[in-house]
Amino acid sequence: MNKIPYKIYLSEEEMPKQWHNIKADMKEVPEPFVNPATGEYCTPEDLAPVFCEDLISQEFNTTDKYIDIPQEIQDFYKMFRPSPLIRAYNLEKALGTPAKIYYKFEGTNTSGSHKLNSAAAQVYYAKKQGLTHLTTETGAGQWGTALAMACAFYDVDLTVYMVKVSAEQKPYRKGVIETYGGKVIPSPSDTTEIGRKILAKNPGTGGSLGCAISEAMEVAAKTENCRYVLGSVLNHVVLHQSIIGMETKIACEKYDIKPDIIIGCAGGGSNLGGLISPFMADKINGKNDIQFIAVEPASCPSLTRGKFALDFGDTGQTTPLMRMYTLGSGFMPSPNHSGGLRFHGMSPIVSKLYHDKYMDAVAVEQTSVFAAASVFAKTEGTLPAPESSHAIRVAIDEALKCKETGEDKTIIFGLTGTGYFDLAAYMSYNEGTMTDSIPTEEDLQRGFDTLPKI
Amino acid sequence: MNKIPYKIYLSEEEMPKQWHNIKADMKEVPEPFVNPATGEYCTPEDLAPVFCEDLISQEFNTTDKYIDIPQEIQDFYKMFRPSPLIRAYNLEKALGTPAKIYYKFEGTNTSGSHKLNSAAAQVYYAKKQGLTHLTTETGAGQWGTALAMACAFYDVDLTVYMVKVSAEQKPYRKGVIETYGGKVIPSPSDTTEIGRKILAKNPGTGGSLGCAISEAMEVAAKTENCRYVLGSVLNHVVLHQSIIGMETKIACEKYDIKPDIIIGCAGGGSNLGGLISPFMADKINGKNDIQFIAVEPASCPSLTRGKFALDFGDTGQTTPLMRMYTLGSGFMPSPNHSGGLRFHGMSPIVSKLYHDKYMDAVAVEQTSVFAAASVFAKTEGTLPAPESSHAIRVAIDEALKCKETGEDKTIIFGLTGTGYFDLAAYMSYNEGTMTDSIPTEEDLQRGFDTLPKI
Repeated sequence: MNKIPYKIYLSEEEMPKQWHNIKADMKEVPEPFVNPATGEYCTPEDLAPVFCEDLISQEFNTTDKYIDIPQEIQDFYKMFRPSPLIRAYNLEKALGTPAKIYYKFEGTNTSGSHKLNSAAAQVYYAKKQGLTHLTTETGAGQWGTALAMACAFYDVDLTVYMVKVSAEQKPYRKGVIETYGGKVIPSPSDTTEIGRKILAKNPGTGGSLGCAISEAMEVAAKTENCRYVLGSVLNHVVLHQSIIGMETKIACEKYDIKPDIIIGCAGGGSNLGGLISPFMADKINGKNDIQFIAVEPASCPSLTRGKFALDFGDTGQTTPLMRMYTLGSGFMPSPNHSGGLRFHGMSPIVSKLYHDKYMDAVAVEQTSVFAAASVFAKTEGTLPAPESSHAIRVAIDEALKCKETGEDKTIIFGLTGTGYFDLAAYMSYNEGTMTDSIPTEEDLQRGFDTLPKI
Repeated sequence: MNKIPYKIYLSEEEMPKQWHNIKADMKEVPEPFVNPATGEYCTPEDLAPVFCEDLISQEFNTTDKYIDIPQEIQDFYKMFRPSPLIRAYNLEKALGTPAKIYYKFEGTNTSGSHKLNSAAAQVYYAKKQGLTHLTTETGAGQWGTALAMACAFYDVDLTVYMVKVSAEQKPYRKGVIETYGGKVIPSPSDTTEIGRKILAKNPGTGGSLGCAISEAMEVAAKTENCRYVLGSVLNHVVLHQSIIGMETKIACEKYDIKPDIIIGCAGGGSNLGGLISPFMADKINGKNDIQFIAVEPASCPSLTRGKFALDFGDTGQTTPLMRMYTLGSGFMPSPNHSGGLRFHGMSPIVSKLYHDKYMDAVAVEQTSVFAAASVFAKTEGTLPAPESSHAIRVAIDEALKCKETGEDKTIIFGLTGTGYFDLAAYMSYNEGTMTDSIPTEEDLQRGFDTLPKI
């Protein structure tokens, strides 16, 4: 066995040359998109006006277990990958746990998160198709930054609809996106029909991912040579994020690390889906018995309190329907929640795996998340993103359970990003002014009332 | 020869176990500190009330070429080192240069810079001596953050005097330092005698490093079990930063990379001194003919327009005197300069090497620095700190010279940190409102008039 270093970096030669398509391993694959007008399954052709061709092909692919990463994308990945798998020795010591804690750290690039894995791929395919302009939404700002970086690299124009409350909490995110040449519009805005409609109905809204998606899609449909790209939820995004899980699995095999628990935060579900992907395939095929845990905010609890139903991906109800755990496209998470993870639905892949009982889910409150983030920052050095800190919270909780039982479980969690643009939230936590907000049953019902009747 | 990867990471086994003490290689060592009251050289005992014992011993050591890094500091280093040496393929391509450009990237830790290399060491020695409280100054905020991280790790109290103009330009720096438990006071402040004196004389001042140093030293001298620590300039800081150069040299030897030019930005000089240290030793001993270039801001040009003279390290004129290139301790750089590098003097080691013609220096204006930073961000992905971008500017200039002459020189520069807390400056550059400010001869004379008459 190789001696395990504090931080495991794969060599360039060891880096994965293929993505892992978990759908090819699933006993039942997620249902295809449904056209809300007809109730029929969508065809690839139906999606072509909105999405890039190669991405649509990946979206529908349920048979190829591995998909080659084009050399150009591999070259882009080399700019910021491999990411390290780090043993959290200092956190373990501070907790006094016999558990072994590892984290896969995706935050060493300027976008500050794993989002660049899919941005690099999506912009490459857009450029390949001859597109000159992309639109997207961003919540916490990590996806918008990642996409701006990729668009700068491939010389493609970009317009980013940024959830208004995030734009206000993180003014400098706008600055970094603009430095990479992207245009930022706080959402809801008066630049789209759907934005004007939402503003008329609820002028004081802080916005939501679902609403920003509607605006970005509307502009993409109306602009020549332009498509819409999405940073999470969809199958092809989970596919690109499987690079995280592939690297993690190679590192585990190289050093004979056998995880008992793998934990990821879940907003749209792409980071979690990508991290667990190859491990989950083995579980489905009876080769391991890993416990997978999705961690979501108590303020936006799609897995733990949502319904497994056909729903729109956006607040404007313009997308095809996806079968997923959802709070209803009309659900508006409380603006006091400081992280991303504010999406009403959940990746159909993650939803299906959860529905079929291959994984667990827990919801955590933000003050307990920031408490975990502070402990992590002080012991492990890195200041984590609030989103990632949801996973830290549960990793700590599981490690503390091990302390009680004396078990030396091996825990791996995804540290998806850094919190350098989240200092306003940290300052609110430090000053004791941060509060929690859990939707009431009535809040949830208002969301469920917006589910399509199909 | 080993195949050169895009990013070179040393393995844990390859990481240096010793710092390199360049003074042991210098034909003439820098003059010791001088007591301004007596004109005599200071003894280690003279410095004991202000500095930690082990650091004083390193400060005075001119004979040991290598100094062992204590195991505890090596363990801390493993949290964020080795740092990668990266080939800037995309920047080279964008410039169309035959030059080979590499950068040693120190910004992958939460402090965002190389500063953690010395913070880890200084707090370890303070703790070992039984101290419970440290004070320091910070300019751009990187040193304050690094020290807060190290103090959190070793459980030592910290008070940070932060240059007022930086505190205003970078409000979230305060947040990150406080998240790690440090106390931040904008300088000049009314919490010290010297601060009150400076404020009375110049109420609107944006402060300077020299002024923040005076305040932090005053508090350290008046507080029990407390010492002052400094993030640059001093010999022992350059010693700790030699880890950068040691790693770079090991990587170069492993992959047969032979640098023709090594470039670093220079504020207090510690990053530059550390980066060049082992290469400079070989140059002094006739084993290479590398061109070393210090890059400083045109707004604070200590090497290119300063005097090689005995001067105080602080504006309050309370430190011992050091022989260095200086603009005079009363020199106040224009507050419109957006980076750090605002120190009136320069590391005595770097000053002596420059004086003895082992290295070159150039001064660059900030708009040209941000232009280089933007090109770098878009091509290489990473958003660089304004300080680091001074080195990028000159690396690009040298690469463009190679384009003209057709030479394929190998250029290495130090990318000391990231610009995530400098978005206000980037936004000002993006909007075209950033201006340059070069001190007039009269400005310089006003600074020189504050040099001690000794």
